[in-house]
Order: sequence, then structure tokens, then C-alpha cells
Amino acid sequence: MRGFAITASLLLAGCASAPAEVATAPAAPTAPVEAAKPPVALQYLYGSPEAAVAVRATNARIADYGVGRINQRPKDSVVLAAGATMDTPAFEPCGTKPFAAVFDADETLIWNLGPMRYFAEKGTAFDVKVWDQWEKTGAGKAAAMPGSVEMVNKLRAAGITVIANTNRSAANAKGSEDTLRAAGLGEFKHGETLFLMGDDATGSSKDGRRATIASKYCVIILGGDQLGDFSQQFNVKDLPAAQRMALATSAAATALWDKGWFLFPNPVYGPWEKLGWGDAFPSDKQWEPSQ
Amino acid sequence: MRGFAITASLLLAGCASAPAEVATAPAAPTAPVEAAKPPVALQYLYGSPEAAVAVRATNARIADYGVGRINQRPKDSVVLAAGATMDTPAFEPCGTKPFAAVFDADETLIWNLGPMRYFAEKGTAFDVKVWDQWEKTGAGKAAAMPGSVEMVNKLRAAGITVIANTNRSAANAKGSEDTLRAAGLGEFKHGETLFLMGDDATGSSKDGRRATIASKYCVIILGGDQLGDFSQQFNVKDLPAAQRMALATSAAATALWDKGWFLFPNPVYGPWEKLGWGDAFPSDKQWEPSQ
Repeated sequence: MRGFAITASLLLAGCASAPAEVATAPAAPTAPVEAAKPPVALQYLYGSPEAAVAVRATNARIADYGVGRINQRPKDSVVLAAGATMDTPAFEPCGTKPFAAVFDADETLIWNLGPMRYFAEKGTAFDVKVWDQWEKTGAGKAAAMPGSVEMVNKLRAAGITVIANTNRSAANAKGSEDTLRAAGLGEFKHGETLFLMGDDATGSSKDGRRATIASKYCVIILGGDQLGDFSQQFNVKDLPAAQRMALATSAAATALWDKGWFLFPNPVYGPWEKLGWGDAFPSDKQWEPSQ
Repeated sequence: MRGFAITASLLLAGCASAPAEVATAPAAPTAPVEAAKPPVALQYLYGSPEAAVAVRATNARIADYGVGRINQRPKDSVVLAAGATMDTPAFEPCGTKPFAAVFDADETLIWNLGPMRYFAEKGTAFDVKVWDQWEKTGAGKAAAMPGSVEMVNKLRAAGITVIANTNRSAANAKGSEDTLRAAGLGEFKHGETLFLMGDDATGSSKDGRRATIASKYCVIILGGDQLGDFSQQFNVKDLPAAQRMALATSAAATALWDKGWFLFPNPVYGPWEKLGWGDAFPSDKQWEPSQ
């Protein structure tokens, strides 16, 4: 799933009854009516000033934090040490290593406007083959997120190496390098400043790649749109929703949010897509009108 | 519309073809299939740690900003003066007035879990009559957003008056006072610390109420989930999407975001629901797979 689980719900959000009805109803006499407007999550993220302002402000916080943080060399990276959890947090040491800031790519540095519109407009679910083509040929059709170019430029000007750690495929390294460059984000070089799925044997977990980066750099910033961009412990298989929430809002995690760990809003896709009614809505908050 | 435009798109996000097909197809043999999961925007906002972390961090920033800001009395409120625009920003004066922080209520202080689940689970569009009942009877079924209780408590402890300015109806003042209290957010009193639609003759615009508040307080913080929580100039009728974006990301506005103006993520409903494909996706970013 290339590290994100876009399912039919991306396009059919909230209308799970529709597929069933469509499947059993007689064939419609005309071609499917194209959606007049994008799904709300896409309208919000890619189109609204409300989201643009939130993203810009996050990028401004990252740049300010980075430029300020290197005035006094930190003892540790913000990359958790192997085996460390939010209960017993411990971090990779900085030593005298050069400074780096590590970002996810998709919906963290760039908006994947090409395939997101394609999937939504065609009414198709996420398709790994289409996504693979996108990684290869998308240069020029992704956009730097609001304020991202200014952010990476400020960090680089301060001497901080900007690195991407993404679950795009190592097989498509050139396409992703080209896509980031064409979006105005500068040079990312596979194996040096671009780390991809397939670089090691641990699949979609970014922990191994983070450890590799932290062995060479003092990582002062991690940025992403999903918790897996900070630690794989949030993505443990079958981790109950309440426990994932507790880990992410624990004292140790809270000490890092906005202070080394920076999270971008992305309501379009994410690991939370498996949440059921009872996960999102506590039972003691159910309410109905009187008639 | 009570200041927000939840339409059928809330529930039918991305499946605008469904209503047409349902309308013309023969009656389904069984009752409508209930959605197995909430729409993605609701999963994200109300259920995900990703959103909870973003909201908590926003509340933490507000509390830190407020407590720090009053150390040196500002000359001006962050409420724009009558007639001032983002091109020629001018603000209400602080004088020696007491400090206040002004927040929208819905999806800024509280999550409306009761009716949001009801609308989504029943597959119905936003219904003003249901919402009116919710305002009257929702106490106990709305939840304080993550970190909101801690935020208002910190501001109050610092001597900053916490005020809500919401487009809930003045006719339902008691219900809204009860709802905020039951969510753990303390006392809001209509006409003193709770301003509602109907308090003046300007309908859903919050500018008049903001001016009333700023005549009595030095407003150091505005918080909301939509641009109308900061200035009605963002909600001018027929304002083109590109112009709304330009205003919200102008230099004058950027100087305020995170520095007096604080925006909470809300991809569930908002004024951006009218955006079309071309608004959310620039035409030069269109892309299709080769087959």
C-alpha cells in the first residue's frame, strides 16, 4: 500500500451505502455522473485558505524552530533510539554530527494534486499501479505545499541539511528526485538526502531509515502528516485505537510536538481510515433529536 | 445555515453521482445499508491521534501566547477596526481595558459529536431543525476539544477573560451555556462572555459582536476554525476563491497567524465547501496515467 491506505473511502467517504445500491441496481441508462465538486476532505486540504494557513503556519514554526535550535547544540537527535518507546523515551545521540531536518514527502513537502484529482474525478479507489506511474512521471504535476519552499530554503541557509524519508519506492528514485526538484524544493539525492522504501529490508517502517540518517546527522526536526513519520511504534499491527491515541498524546510525545516533531494536517488519507463509529464517537456522546 | 454550510456533501463527499442514481433507481429491496465507517473527514477530525495532536498543539500555543502576551500591554487588540482590511490593517485600541481571548464555539472549543454522528449515521444532510434541537438539548453530548479545558483554565488563571463568539442562536443561549459548562469549559454568560447570532442585527457576521467585545476588552487572541472567526472580509458574498486565498495568506494576515489569530483544523464543514475542481486543483497540475 506504499505506506498509505487510500481506499475507496477516499472517494466514497460517508456513502458506504452507495456501492451496495449501485451494485444491485440495474445499469444506469447513462454514464456515471461526474462529481460536481471534490470530496470535502480534498476541498479542505487542497483548496481552502483555512488549510493553507494551517500548513503555512506549520512551515513557519519549523523554520523558526530550526534556526533557533542550532544556536545551542542539542545533546540528542529527536529520533528515538532503537527499542525506545514513549514510556521510556531515549534518543539517538547528536555528538558533533552536522544538523539535519527529516521530512516525509507526500502531503508533507508536496501535494500530490495529479493523482488525487485523477482518483477523485474518476471515482476510482487508490490504485498502486497508477501510483507507481505517478512516482515515475509526476514531476511538474505535484505542488510544493504552502510555505514549504520558504521553509526548506531557510533551513538550508542556516546550514541544516534537508532530508526526505518517504515510502515512495526506491525503484522510482529518479522520478521522486525530479518531482521534488520540479516543485521548487531543490535537490534531494537518493541515498544521501532521499530515503525510500526498499532502501532496507524493513518495508514501510521508516525507523531503520531514520536510524541510518541519525547515525550521520544530528536530527533536530522530524516532519510528517502521519504518526509513522515519527516512530513506527504508532503503527504496530493491531494497536488498538485508544492505545494509539494514548501514545500520541502521552507526556513524552507532547514534549516533542512543535518542539522537534511537527505534524501537518492531512484529512485525505491516513492510518486512521480503519476507525469505526465507536472509535471516532464515544458511546456516551450519542444523541438524537426528539423527532 | 447557522454560520456553517453542512450540505449533503458532508455525508456524500465524493459521491455526487450517488444521489442521482438513487433518485432514479427502483426502490432498494432492503433498508439502506448503514455506513460501516464514518466519512474520512469525521474519522480524521474526531477519531485520529493525528488531529488530536494538531488540536492539542494549537491549544498549547494559544495558552503560551496569551500568558506571555500580557507581560507587556499591547497597544491594540487583534480585532480589526471597522472598515479596516488586510490591505490597510488597523485595529481596535487596547487602552487600559482588561484582557480577553475570544473563541468560536463549534469545532473550536467543542466537538459536536452528537449531531455529527447522527447526521452521518442516518445519511442525512445538515438539518437546521435538528441543529436547533441540538443547541437546546446537547449539554453533555458535546466534548471539549483536546487541550481546550487546559487552555481556557490557563488563560483564566492569568487573568484573561475567555469569551465565546458563535453563530449559535441567541434564542438558545441557555442550551449553549449548559453545553459549554457540561464539556468542562466553565462558565459562559450570554451578553457578558457569550455572544450569539441575534445579539445584533448583522446576522452571521461576527464583526459587530467582535467590535462590541473590543469596546470593553483588550482582545489579545482570536481563535476559530473558519476565516469568518477573524474578519467578515473573508466571507464577503461572491468573493472569488483565489482572492479569499490571497487575503488569508497576505503579509498582514500572515503577521497575525499564530500571533494573535489561531486557526483550528476542521475538514468536516466550512465555507470552502463551495469550491469546485478548478478551485482546489490548478489546471496546470492535471495528470493521468498512460493507460
